[in-house]
Amino acid sequence: MIPEPIQRFIELFSKLPSLGPRQATRLAFLIAGKGKAEIRELAAALASLGALTSCAECFARYTPHTSHAAQNLCSICNTSDRAQNVVAIIERDTDRIAMEGTKKFRGRYLVIGEIGRAGILSPDQKMRIQHLKNSLVKRFGKAEEIILALNPSSIGDLQAESIAKELTGSASRVTRLGRGLPAGGEIEFADEDTLGGAIENRR
Amino acid sequence: MIPEPIQRFIELFSKLPSLGPRQATRLAFLIAGKGKAEIRELAAALASLGALTSCAECFARYTPHTSHAAQNLCSICNTSDRAQNVVAIIERDTDRIAMEGTKKFRGRYLVIGEIGRAGILSPDQKMRIQHLKNSLVKRFGKAEEIILALNPSSIGDLQAESIAKELTGSASRVTRLGRGLPAGGEIEFADEDTLGGAIENRR
Repeated sequence: MIPEPIQRFIELFSKLPSLGPRQATRLAFLIAGKGKAEIRELAAALASLGALTSCAECFARYTPHTSHAAQNLCSICNTSDRAQNVVAIIERDTDRIAMEGTKKFRGRYLVIGEIGRAGILSPDQKMRIQHLKNSLVKRFGKAEEIILALNPSSIGDLQAESIAKELTGSASRVTRLGRGLPAGGEIEFADEDTLGGAIENRR
Repeated sequence: MIPEPIQRFIELFSKLPSLGPRQATRLAFLIAGKGKAEIRELAAALASLGALTSCAECFARYTPHTSHAAQNLCSICNTSDRAQNVVAIIERDTDRIAMEGTKKFRGRYLVIGEIGRAGILSPDQKMRIQHLKNSLVKRFGKAEEIILALNPSSIGDLQAESIAKELTGSASRVTRLGRGLPAGGEIEFADEDTLGGAIENRR
């Protein structure tokens, strides 16, 4: 009953963590209802994601430029405009976009991928941290600061602890993002953890 | 900062009604993190949705088979196993999948696409209903039954009224799906509309 191309689409796309089978099904029929030219355009846009590569220093996905191909570095790791000895460790590329949006951070990043809820690091994640340590030792001795930019939650705390352990001796300061009231929030409606964090973090 | 292929993907995919910009961004990076072969496979699955076509009778999307190509009909409109003079009018292809899942309906469908909240039919939707009427007149005089299988809500009621007006004289019976308590539900926790429907619809 379900057309074969739709079934195939659902099968592949519902394996992606951000789409369930229900949404993949809706999406399949939505796309199938578009014109052939538009479908070709969507498929091409998706295919071109395969052109991205990982930065050799921070592991963020970026578009390789043939001119810098030898360096294999993203634009942030490749510039002297940024403090290369100040590093924010983040889980996702999208966290980097959020942080860049603030224009408040002038260091670089290390993208380590999503960490399990128990805070246990995968071999790949440990490898990335080790890679950062080696790079810091070689270039600066140690980092001026490493910010563990993980989510503000007890799970994030566990994850930060695991990473901090791996980083022993690699940085003058290891910090977390500040916790407190979100901009525009009202004290009355803040949950206990948020308000508690704001009290501890008062300035 | 955001790689060009990611931006392009977000731009195109966030226009699809079921994905917002945030989810399109997550999806883009998720896919970009996969291997080249897997990305090719996803793109091919998406591209192959372009092979689907609309059934000439019910407008559902289906895979055309070269052998029946002349008929341009989906498997449900193309079989004498189904009562062709009993028609469920539905908004989406996915509603058809849900109804087929029950194995309780032995008629055929008319897919008319999502109707606005005010129940006003688009010219294309009126054309599809007219197409059904012509087909019924030609083959049966009128339908034995037309089920307006719209969502059980006051919006669905408005939409059903609009369609019923267009159908005047085309069917011996025009019905809606039964309203009542969902299987496994508890009376105590049913909302007023649901319980009210169940009382009116008691058997």
